Formats: sequence, C-alpha cells, structure tokens
Amino acid sequence: MDNFRFCVGTDILFGKGQVEKLPEVLAPFGKKVLLVYGGGSIKKTGLYDRVLSLLKDFEVFELSGIEPNPRVESVYAGAKICKEQKIEAILAVGGGSTIDCSKAIGAAAHYDGDAWDLILEPSKIRKALPIVTILTLAATGSEMDAGGVITNLKTKEKLGFMNPLVLPKASILDPTNTYTVSAWHTAAGAADIMSHILEVYFGHQEAFIADRISEALLKTVIHYAPIAIREPENYEARAQLMWASTLALNGLTSTGKMCAWTCHPIEHEISAYYDITHGVGLAILTPRWMRYALNEKTADLFATYAVNVWGFAPSEDRFRLANAGIDATEAFFKSIGIPMTLGEMRINSEHFQAMAEHAVSVGSLQYAFVPLVPQDVVKILTACL
Amino acid sequence: MDNFRFCVGTDILFGKGQVEKLPEVLAPFGKKVLLVYGGGSIKKTGLYDRVLSLLKDFEVFELSGIEPNPRVESVYAGAKICKEQKIEAILAVGGGSTIDCSKAIGAAAHYDGDAWDLILEPSKIRKALPIVTILTLAATGSEMDAGGVITNLKTKEKLGFMNPLVLPKASILDPTNTYTVSAWHTAAGAADIMSHILEVYFGHQEAFIADRISEALLKTVIHYAPIAIREPENYEARAQLMWASTLALNGLTSTGKMCAWTCHPIEHEISAYYDITHGVGLAILTPRWMRYALNEKTADLFATYAVNVWGFAPSEDRFRLANAGIDATEAFFKSIGIPMTLGEMRINSEHFQAMAEHAVSVGSLQYAFVPLVPQDVVKILTACL
Repeated sequence: MDNFRFCVGTDILFGKGQVEKLPEVLAPFGKKVLLVYGGGSIKKTGLYDRVLSLLKDFEVFELSGIEPNPRVESVYAGAKICKEQKIEAILAVGGGSTIDCSKAIGAAAHYDGDAWDLILEPSKIRKALPIVTILTLAATGSEMDAGGVITNLKTKEKLGFMNPLVLPKASILDPTNTYTVSAWHTAAGAADIMSHILEVYFGHQEAFIADRISEALLKTVIHYAPIAIREPENYEARAQLMWASTLALNGLTSTGKMCAWTCHPIEHEISAYYDITHGVGLAILTPRWMRYALNEKTADLFATYAVNVWGFAPSEDRFRLANAGIDATEAFFKSIGIPMTLGEMRINSEHFQAMAEHAVSVGSLQYAFVPLVPQDVVKILTACL
Repeated sequence: MDNFRFCVGTDILFGKGQVEKLPEVLAPFGKKVLLVYGGGSIKKTGLYDRVLSLLKDFEVFELSGIEPNPRVESVYAGAKICKEQKIEAILAVGGGSTIDCSKAIGAAAHYDGDAWDLILEPSKIRKALPIVTILTLAATGSEMDAGGVITNLKTKEKLGFMNPLVLPKASILDPTNTYTVSAWHTAAGAADIMSHILEVYFGHQEAFIADRISEALLKTVIHYAPIAIREPENYEARAQLMWASTLALNGLTSTGKMCAWTCHPIEHEISAYYDITHGVGLAILTPRWMRYALNEKTADLFATYAVNVWGFAPSEDRFRLANAGIDATEAFFKSIGIPMTLGEMRINSEHFQAMAEHAVSVGSLQYAFVPLVPQDVVKILTACL
C-alpha cells in the first residue's frame, strides 16, 4: 500500500428535507452569498424558491446559466460578482458542472490574474471562498472532492484542476432533488460514477481494501441505476446512486494506490470538441478501452473484476472471464439506454489524431494503467465509431 | 436509506515515515503539548525518542501509564496537568485506550466538574483540546472517530461516550509502528475491527452501499489478520489491517442505517468485571450471539453474510448457509489464536446476572438487532463458558 494523505472534512447532510439546515450551515461563513446554478431546472422543481425563502436573512447574488461543460467565461463572470459585491460564500445548487464552476469562481475571487491560470496551474490557488453545495445530480462526486473541470472553447481545452482549498465545506444531498433527472442524465451519471471507480480500480498496483470498496460501489450503481431509470421517484435507488457518486471520487477508492486515469482524459477531448454529455462519452469509451487494455499482464485484474463485480464464477480461463466482464460492462451501459457508438452521437474520425495527441499529453497517458501513445488512442476512438 | 450526517475531517497521514510531519501537524494548535501514552512499549520501540526529538521546539508534558481499559482516574490526572500547565494540544501515542483516554482528558480540560459527568452525559462537553494521534495498534478506530470508552472500576462501569468535539484533528498511521504488536493483540485487534463492522452490518435495516463496504472491510481483515500474525513485519498486512480499523468505525459503514449494537455492551461488562482484552471478549461472544440471533426473520441476512463475506455458494437453504457463516466466524477467531471460551479466560457464571442486567440497561439491548432481555444475555454468556 502506498503512503497517502486523506482529509475530506465536507459536512455531508444526507436525506429528505436536509435543505432546511441550509441557513445553519451557511451562516458561519457570512451573509453575502453568491447563488450559482445552471439552466434553470431548479426553478421548475421549486428548489430555487425553497432556497431563496430559506435565505431570507442573507444577501443573495446570483449567477445562472452554468453550462453542462462549464466554461471559463462563467468563472470570469462569477469572480467579477464576488469581487464587486464582496461575496463571503458560494452556494452551488446543481450538478457537478455548477459545483466545479463554483470552485473555480471561489478560487478566482481571490486571484488577480486571469482565472484560467488557476486551472492550468492549481498551485496558484492560495485562498478560496467557502463553498456549500446542494446536489441535484448523482454523477461527478464534486460535492465531496477538491477538484473540478473547466472548458476553454477558445483553446479547445477541457482541463481538470485540484486544490484542497476548494473542497466544499458542506454538501446537502437530498435524493428527492434528483427525481426529475431524465433517464438520459441518470444513465450518464451512472456511467460517470462507474468510470471514476474504474479509472482507479485498474491501476498500477492493487490495494486490497480500496479495491474491495470500489467493487462495493460498482455493485451499488449496477444494482440501482436501472431502478432509478425505471422508477425516477424510487427514493432508495436515488439515494444509493447519490451516495455512491460521492464516495466514488472523494479519495477513498484511491487510498494507498497510484492513480493513472485513461478514459477521462480521452473523453474530455470528445466533449471539448463536440460538447456531448460527459458520462455518455465515458460509457462509449470504457469497454473499448478495456478490450484494448486486456493483455497477458492485465488479464488477472480483469478476471477479478468479472468475478467480484459482475458475479461470474471463478475459472481458470482468465481471458474468457476478462472478456465476459468487459462484455457485461458494455451490455450494462446499453441496457440503461446509452447509445454505445460515437457514430450515433454524430462524431466521426475527423479530429481523432489531434484529440489523441492532446489526450496523451494532458492526461500523461504514457504512464497510464496500460501506457498509450496517440496511435493507441486513435485506435480506441476508432473502435468507438 | 435513513437520513444521516457525516463529517469526519481527521487529517489522515498514512504510511511509512509519516511521523516526520508531526511538527507541521501539531504546530497550528500551539506549542504546549501533553504527550499521553500507555505502558511504555513506545520507549522500547524507539517511537518515544523519535517523537521527543521531533518536538524539540515544543514544550512537552507527559502522562504515561494509560491502562488497556483506560480508567477515569487517568482522565482526572490528565485534565489536572492540562489545567495547571495551560496545555494547548494533546498528542496521543498508542492504541485505542490511549486515544480514548486523551479524548476524555481533552474534554475534561475544559470542564469544571467531575470528568465522569462527561462520560455519563457527553452533551455536557462544550469544548475540548485538539487531539493529534500516532496510532500503534490496529483495533478500535478511535483515531478517526468522535468516541471513546472509559472504565470506572469503583462503579463497575465501562461506558462509551461520543461528541464531535473530540474527533482527532490529525492521525499519523504508520503500519511499521504495529510491527511489535504481539500475535495476541493483533488477533484481538482483528476481532475488535470485525465486531465494529458486524455490530452495524446486523442492523434493523439493510443499506446496500454501507453493507457492501462492510463486506469489503471484513474480507480485508479476514485476509490479512492471519498474515500479520504469521509475519509480524509484513508491511502490506499491517497496512491493510490499520486502514481497515480506521474505516470500520469512522461512520462510513453506518451511513443510512440505524445502529443498535449488541456484543460491545455485553463485552464491556466482561472487561469491566475481569479486565480481559476487549477484542478477545468480543471474539468469544460474537459467534454465540450470532447463533442466538439466528431466526426466521434474520436468516436472510446471515445467509447473505455467509455468501458475501465467507464466499459460500448461494443456496436455497438459508439456515444451512447462515450456520456455515457463523461456524466460519468462530473457526476464524480460533485460527488466529483466540481462546474461544470464557472458561479459558478463568471467567465463571458468578456475575452473569448482574452483568446481563447492566448490559441490557446501558446498551439498550431491548432495541438491538434481535432484542434481548437480561435472561437472553445470561444464555449467550453461558454459551460462551
């Protein structure tokens, strides 16, 4: 087991009605709050009104319209409000995009240069506004981690950043706030959660306890995602997915092992070029990457995955087992309604070379679980067509 | 899934050599430190000298001799030093007993009445000194939870207390600090970890994600405890046990489910009367309690336990499976060297009635997974003879 440091003190308020505690949770940080949200679905569901009525003793400023792949322009806009209005805390109400964007805004509010610098070089973040979140989508895990992803369409870059200073102080996780999430986004969210786990599970070394926890989380998503899609107001299913999304990326599954992600950097290229739903891109990529990564050296781990996650009976034939697990992964994504080819997403091979080169360089894919050069990535993308 | 709040911000520094970061971790709290430790084994291992040399810029006071079942007299002694010397932080170097005692000392340092009040009524804790721990035994999970257990031999009480204010600020978990733990205490520690998980796993409701994580942790202990006992300097085994001990009781396995512990309150009676090693008492009790708790209503869960933890093939015959899981539990404890009867610990039935009555009242066993009245507890204890 590798050395690690784990410090994730986000105050999680989980369950029905927890939003009532919002004033108590926000108050220690101040009275001037920037409310950040996305396309306005929270107005339709009534959550927006509920939040404003709870915050009647606060001075609330607003930034809405955060994009599904949040753009640096939104970060600029938010930081401007924070500076001009002397905002004391940010309340992010939404999914991972809104929370990611809020983290960048919180950091940019204390930075004098171009906020994009902080994404390129997160160690430049020296201070950040406290962030409280109300989660409305089980997917990214941003509600309890210290990272985010921001897109710069001008430079065609979609980059992750991390800094402990942007870890949310508190997150309100009420599964009923995800009842209105469409089947499409529920499926994409499930794929995103699974990808966060798989990117770590398939790592350079095994770490027994972390890997067994990863399997526990994967089994949870596999069990409950189809239920949530079939019965959008099934509380238990929404709750299990929500807590799985949070635990999948708060560092727990990577304690004691080196991480070297593969599908995320490649997918970021796809959605940077085509602005597709992140989780859908991941679902399409994952089984194709797995087939490409399966070899003499990795077969044992893929076989373990097939047995421990998908319930296949142990067998001597590692490759048969490994392939069964990979096939099950692909079939699962298809079963929850994800179009499993890039062709169906109207994406062709036009930019594959450039995307592959950028993914390898930004994602350091030469150090991945199975090291990849651009030509490997082109082959994986081609298998997705 | 029940509503829950989860906020466990202990800064975990895990791995070889992490003790080097002690000054950096302690400094934010102040320069006047009370070093609390047990019987002096840390002097033999060199850890004591290492800590003192790292703290050369601090003013260090000492309280040693903390008992394996820490007594309220040690709390009084520690609180006295803290008050007289205006201590700013407590450094607990040891296992759960030392850490538990330090938590009580930290709370008592800010309390004017009898410190035993705080154990009887933890809501009276309004402030506590910050605690940093260096763990030397994988067992209680006290390094990342907000509770402790203190014994009052005068009143023959061994009582747990909890308050978020006593959660350690940071814990240094270096598995090499457990290399010298004897086979006996390694086994007892493993039993303690497993019991923490089982007390929650066998709960009033199932919680898919928490229960799968519990199984992950149980499998870890079952896999690595025998290795650590056979090869005391096997880093991987010591590391896995250590991280399992921490995750077993930091609240993760009980997220979303109501807790109603059974074996711990009963065992606390045994060690309050006979001062035996806590984990040994738990190991003796657990399979006997399981057999007593197995019935038409609980058989499904015991069968799931047998399949998911012990790897038995699923079968229609729930009771056969359940009994196989329970037998495996008992055989496992025996295999790691625990004497599996109270008789071997020179305990007879003399105090069973009084112990049973106290366990039911203090442990609220009428609300346990399988509700117990004193006569049930006497039967379970008798089955342990």
